[in-house]
Amino acid sequence: MHILIIGAAGMVGRKLSQRLVRDGGLGGRAIDEMTLVDVVAPEAPEGFAGKVNAREADLSAPGEAEALVAARPDVIFHLAAIVSGEAELDFDKGYRINLDGTRYLFDAIQRAHVADGYKPRVVFTSSIAVVGAPLPYPIPDDYHLTPLTSYGTQKAIGELLLADYTRRGFFDGIGIRLPTICIRPGKPNKAASGFFSNILREPLVGKEAILPVSEDVRHWHTSPRSAVGFLIHGATMDLEKVGPRRNLSMPGLSATVGEQIEALRRVAGDKAVALIRREPDEMIMKMVAGWAPGFEAKRARELGFTAETSFDDIIRAHIEDELGGKL
Amino acid sequence: MHILIIGAAGMVGRKLSQRLVRDGGLGGRAIDEMTLVDVVAPEAPEGFAGKVNAREADLSAPGEAEALVAARPDVIFHLAAIVSGEAELDFDKGYRINLDGTRYLFDAIQRAHVADGYKPRVVFTSSIAVVGAPLPYPIPDDYHLTPLTSYGTQKAIGELLLADYTRRGFFDGIGIRLPTICIRPGKPNKAASGFFSNILREPLVGKEAILPVSEDVRHWHTSPRSAVGFLIHGATMDLEKVGPRRNLSMPGLSATVGEQIEALRRVAGDKAVALIRREPDEMIMKMVAGWAPGFEAKRARELGFTAETSFDDIIRAHIEDELGGKL
Repeated sequence: MHILIIGAAGMVGRKLSQRLVRDGGLGGRAIDEMTLVDVVAPEAPEGFAGKVNAREADLSAPGEAEALVAARPDVIFHLAAIVSGEAELDFDKGYRINLDGTRYLFDAIQRAHVADGYKPRVVFTSSIAVVGAPLPYPIPDDYHLTPLTSYGTQKAIGELLLADYTRRGFFDGIGIRLPTICIRPGKPNKAASGFFSNILREPLVGKEAILPVSEDVRHWHTSPRSAVGFLIHGATMDLEKVGPRRNLSMPGLSATVGEQIEALRRVAGDKAVALIRREPDEMIMKMVAGWAPGFEAKRARELGFTAETSFDDIIRAHIEDELGGKL
Repeated sequence: MHILIIGAAGMVGRKLSQRLVRDGGLGGRAIDEMTLVDVVAPEAPEGFAGKVNAREADLSAPGEAEALVAARPDVIFHLAAIVSGEAELDFDKGYRINLDGTRYLFDAIQRAHVADGYKPRVVFTSSIAVVGAPLPYPIPDDYHLTPLTSYGTQKAIGELLLADYTRRGFFDGIGIRLPTICIRPGKPNKAASGFFSNILREPLVGKEAILPVSEDVRHWHTSPRSAVGFLIHGATMDLEKVGPRRNLSMPGLSATVGEQIEALRRVAGDKAVALIRREPDEMIMKMVAGWAPGFEAKRARELGFTAETSFDDIIRAHIEDELGGKL
C-alpha cells in the first residue's frame, strides 16, 4: 500500500512516518511505498525497506496537488499548515496555504474520482482553534465553531469541505481535531502556547523554564504519541460508524498549569519544579484566556480514540520517547 | 449613500430594493445611488429618484468583484447564490458561485480596505441549510453546523469567512441565517420545499395544491416581509453589540403542516382548505425529515430582529403584500 503524508517534515509528520515504519504496515496491510511531502524536503525515515519519495513541494502551487494524487496513494494524511501565529500575521499566506492548499488537494482527488473511481482515505488534522471564547467547560461535541483566529477559520473550513466531499463520495475523510500537543519535543519556541511544554520539558533535563501565566489556567492536552495514535486510528477505523459528521474532537487531558506542575513534582521531584520561573506576561495571559479548557470528546472516545488520563502519563511518555526512558 | 445589492433579481432582492425605495433611505441616511446586480439584469425599482445601475454580472467571473467594489458602496447586500438543488446537481457550479463568488467579493473588499481604508457594512444571507439532521428542537444558538448539502456547506463557509474578515477589520459584516420563506410568491415550483408555500398560496386564489408529506411535519418559516426586515435591521443595527459571533439564526415561526392548514382555515375558510390534495411523496418525505424543525434564535431576538408569531399573520402578510389586501 502507498501512503502519502503532506506536512511530513513537521513534528507530528516525522513521528507518524517513524511509527508507520516501526509498525511495518497500516490496518493489517503492508506499506510498500511512502511519499513524504513538505515545503522543506522531509528526511526518509530510518529502517524502511519500501520505496520512499521525499518531495519538496508547496500544496498551494499550481499542479502540485494533481502531481501528488497522480500516483493514487491509498491513504493521504494531510497535516500541512501555516501555524496560527503566522496565519494571523500574514493574512494572504494563511488563506493560500491553509485554505487554498487544502481545497486544491480535495479537488484533485475529486477529479481523480470522477476520472477513474479513485477513492482514498483522507486523514485531515484540524485543531481546537476552531472554537473561540467564551467557551463552556467541558465543550460538548455539538458546540458551534466560532474561531477567533484566521488559522482556526481555515481549519473549520477544511472540516466543512472534508465532510461535504466525503458525503459526495469523492473520498473517505476523517477530521482529527487535535488538542494542544504536550510535551512538544525540541527547543523552547516563541509560540504563545509554548510554555505548556517548556515548563515540563526543560526542568526534566535540568534547565530553567518561564511560566508566563497563573497556575489556575486550564487547557487541553495530549502527547505526541497519542496524536500519532489518533491519526493511525483515523486511517484504519471503520468510517461507516462515524456517519456524516466526520470531524471529531479528540480525547485529551484537561489540566490546570498547577496540575501539570504537581505531575512534574511526582515524576521528577522538587528540584525539577524549582526550575520553573514565574514571569507573568499580560499579553500571553490575555490570549490564553480565550483558549479551550477541555472537550467532552464523547463521540471520539466511543469510536475508539484513546489518550492519556493523567499528566504523569504524558510526562512518562516524553521520558520514554525523547529521553531514552531515563531522567 | 450608495447601496449595492448582489442577487437583486431574486425574490428577496426585488423586495429589498422596493422596500429601500419606499423607505427612501437606510438608517436615517438618504439613498442617492443603488447598484443592482444579478446573473440576469435586474429591473430598476419603480419610484426611485436617485441613480440606478442595473448590471448583469457573475460574481465568480474574473474582475467582477473588483468592479463592484470600485465604486465603494456604503452597504453591500450579498444575496446571490445557486440554490440548494442546483448546487447539489452541479458540484463545480455550486462551489464556483456560492464559495468562490463570495470569497472574491470579500477579498476585493479586503484589498480596497488595505488600499484606502474602505470598510463597508456587508449583509450576507445564510440559510438554515447550515444545519443537518439529526437535530434537536429547538436548535440552540450554539449548535454546531453539520450541513448535509453542498449548498449548506458553502453557506457555512461563507459565514466563517464573514466572521474572520470582520474580526480582521476589513468590513463590518453580519450573517443572516434565513428561515424557509413562506409564503413564497409566484408560481408553484419544483423545489422540494415548495409545498410549504403552495398549500397556502394556491388555495388563497382558488387553486388546488398538492401536499406530499404528512401534517405532523414541523418546519421553520418566515414571511418575505420579515426576511427583508432582517436585512434592513442587519444593515442598520449597532454591530458592536454583536461581538465576534457575527452569524445569527433569525427568529421565525416553527409550525407543523397541520398548524399551517388550520391557520389557512381561520383566514380563508374550509373552502380554501378543501383545495389541498394529499399526494404522499416518499422522496420528499425523506428529504424533509432532515430539515430544521425550528431554532431558539435567542441572540437575534435580543438584538432586535423580529418576525411573525402566528401563521395567521404570515398568511395575512401575503394577502396584504401580494393580493392587494383582499381575498
